[in-house]
Amino acid sequence: MVQVNENYLKLKAGYLFPEISKRVNAYTKSNVGADIIKLGIGDVTEPLPKSCIDAMNKALIEMGTINGFKGYGPEQGYAWLREKICENDFISRGCQISAEEIFVSDGSKCDSSNILDILGNDNSIAVTDPVYPVYVDSNVMTGRTGESHQNGTYEGLTYLAISENNNFLPEIPKSKVDIVYLCFPNNPTGATITKEELKKWVDYSNKNKSLILFDAAYEAFIQDDDLPHSIYEIDGAKDCAIEFRSFSKNAGFTGVRCAYTVVPKNLVGLNSNDEKIDLWSLWNRRQSTKFNGVSYIVQRGAEAVYSSEGKEEVKNLIDFYMENAKIMKNKLKTAGYKVFGGDNAPYIWIKVPDRMTSWNFFDYLLERASVVGTPGSGFGLAGEGYFRLSAFNSRSKVIDAMKRIINI
Amino acid sequence: MVQVNENYLKLKAGYLFPEISKRVNAYTKSNVGADIIKLGIGDVTEPLPKSCIDAMNKALIEMGTINGFKGYGPEQGYAWLREKICENDFISRGCQISAEEIFVSDGSKCDSSNILDILGNDNSIAVTDPVYPVYVDSNVMTGRTGESHQNGTYEGLTYLAISENNNFLPEIPKSKVDIVYLCFPNNPTGATITKEELKKWVDYSNKNKSLILFDAAYEAFIQDDDLPHSIYEIDGAKDCAIEFRSFSKNAGFTGVRCAYTVVPKNLVGLNSNDEKIDLWSLWNRRQSTKFNGVSYIVQRGAEAVYSSEGKEEVKNLIDFYMENAKIMKNKLKTAGYKVFGGDNAPYIWIKVPDRMTSWNFFDYLLERASVVGTPGSGFGLAGEGYFRLSAFNSRSKVIDAMKRIINI
Repeated sequence: MVQVNENYLKLKAGYLFPEISKRVNAYTKSNVGADIIKLGIGDVTEPLPKSCIDAMNKALIEMGTINGFKGYGPEQGYAWLREKICENDFISRGCQISAEEIFVSDGSKCDSSNILDILGNDNSIAVTDPVYPVYVDSNVMTGRTGESHQNGTYEGLTYLAISENNNFLPEIPKSKVDIVYLCFPNNPTGATITKEELKKWVDYSNKNKSLILFDAAYEAFIQDDDLPHSIYEIDGAKDCAIEFRSFSKNAGFTGVRCAYTVVPKNLVGLNSNDEKIDLWSLWNRRQSTKFNGVSYIVQRGAEAVYSSEGKEEVKNLIDFYMENAKIMKNKLKTAGYKVFGGDNAPYIWIKVPDRMTSWNFFDYLLERASVVGTPGSGFGLAGEGYFRLSAFNSRSKVIDAMKRIINI
Repeated sequence: MVQVNENYLKLKAGYLFPEISKRVNAYTKSNVGADIIKLGIGDVTEPLPKSCIDAMNKALIEMGTINGFKGYGPEQGYAWLREKICENDFISRGCQISAEEIFVSDGSKCDSSNILDILGNDNSIAVTDPVYPVYVDSNVMTGRTGESHQNGTYEGLTYLAISENNNFLPEIPKSKVDIVYLCFPNNPTGATITKEELKKWVDYSNKNKSLILFDAAYEAFIQDDDLPHSIYEIDGAKDCAIEFRSFSKNAGFTGVRCAYTVVPKNLVGLNSNDEKIDLWSLWNRRQSTKFNGVSYIVQRGAEAVYSSEGKEEVKNLIDFYMENAKIMKNKLKTAGYKVFGGDNAPYIWIKVPDRMTSWNFFDYLLERASVVGTPGSGFGLAGEGYFRLSAFNSRSKVIDAMKRIINI
């Protein structure tokens, strides 16, 4: 008789965003015609860069011809894309990453959960709290945690609380952990990390032979020149870190689907005989066996992000969303809220008013302003009392949403 | 210290196709200018249907406008695509599958390996021999097998040999297995299964509460009206089978990336208390958590496969490749080879000449005719002594390849 993977049954009901959808749908039903402004899910709203569309259009034309047609591509991504990524995102910033170390994929959500495939089940895992829920859920689903507690945390995971108290910077764990997830600029808090602070994590990991899973999906939003865009800007990171990057937020590819993961060739883990096994080979094998590469058309679109027109267009998109963030931050401050983030990230992290929970504040904004955000508690226990607004929307909607919030 | 997933270390060196590439590259280096004809990897060669290109082009234009732009789509695929699939691939053939039971993905290779995520580790697994290597490797990688034997098989897997002796139809196992992989029309042998024979498997699975993972990636090549295109044409299959389908081979989407998986709502597995757990919810959770849906542009292309123009174009593509298969089969028979498959599948399965192994024959065809095929032994122990040629190439190359083989 076929058995299921019982670890799935440990998952707390409902991934955060489906629960939000449910509440919004219920509100819409009882408030027909309500003009809801969504600042919840971190999804971009502006059109794709023209250079990306042109490149994909050209690829489409090729695909309609005998000589231009492309079938299966390399599972790791086309060399021309991997080389562009390498040159622009790493070499230009002084990171000695080679094109071969870059694996193109259809999304960071996939990569950051699939990476567990190549790692042992007994590794101890640390995540920040609050945190992007996928890191936690993918560990639960693969049996790397115990049962969930009443408060929503899982047995066996190490939670590194981030809050005002520590300036949203996780403290280095006292005990040893094998794998630690770090995301900077941070989702959901919008916090950043300096090179000095990140160096402490790299040193910790190299000392303990731990692995950092570094999510840099929001690096394009960094405004402060001193902040690292990649963990490989830190000496020693190539010995202890895998980095996830995405075209979703910089070039607006959330509906187009392209991302990449960097696995340095010298990165190793241990087998049960304490022999070193290189992770690059395992990930290469995983991708070759379980993945068939990203659409050729989409890869041509991603390549165009690195053209001079593409770079200009991406810059304009980032400037646009960051201006939204600035407006939001200022208006929310005017309205008396304590706000964080938003300076180098498209997320504003609001301290919710006293005596309200994150979900109370969600309902409050929805019912009183028809504005949808994301409850901080949905990202973890230490997110309780906070609320995330995203800067991804049109200027007029952002201004309108702020007016409504001020006028509650 | 970070531990690796040691199961990866059990994998036999080299996935089949990389090994082929290596030998072809070596041959090319020592035979500069050799005009190699590739009938190896099952990759299509004809241009994409115009209706698909037009639809993707239209989607691209939308993505460049404020109102037409699409961000994250549903992880399960857009409803309009799932409904088209449902209506055309299932309802029209009398299968009571609903749109909700269809999960759109970026490839069958991903789906057929990712499906293991939701299933217990202790299930006993049966595969045919020869078999599509991904089924085996994905089980090895997740620890569902023991070590490999000298002959390339893995401890703990049940192998169901298919050969001339049983007309390439696996025999129902005497002992109970929890999960069985079936692929019809078959890759690599090109064999088919009748409704009566498939009914035996459905009955076996329902009796033993087993799960059939049915790969129907090649259903579009079926010429014989009596053969089932979907396992759901068989009574009782909705209680015991998951089906994998793909746009790769019918509409030539190998480089575009779109497929789908059908998980019926009434399908269940057991937890360790022998309680029934529905697999649809687990797969839905898996896809929502670890996947972000298929490119909007690509989904519009897939939708066009079901337009009247799209259907006509797909039919023409299938007819074209099947005419290739017919030519190949006839010519190879003329050359004295014993050949199988090719009537309802794009694969010709050749019995290699006496005293040759599959890899001997690979080298023989490569060196004497500059033709690349796939050694049967690469698909499993019982594939030894056979050789696969694919009908995916231009007419002129197919004719040329056959001439060369005849003239060896």
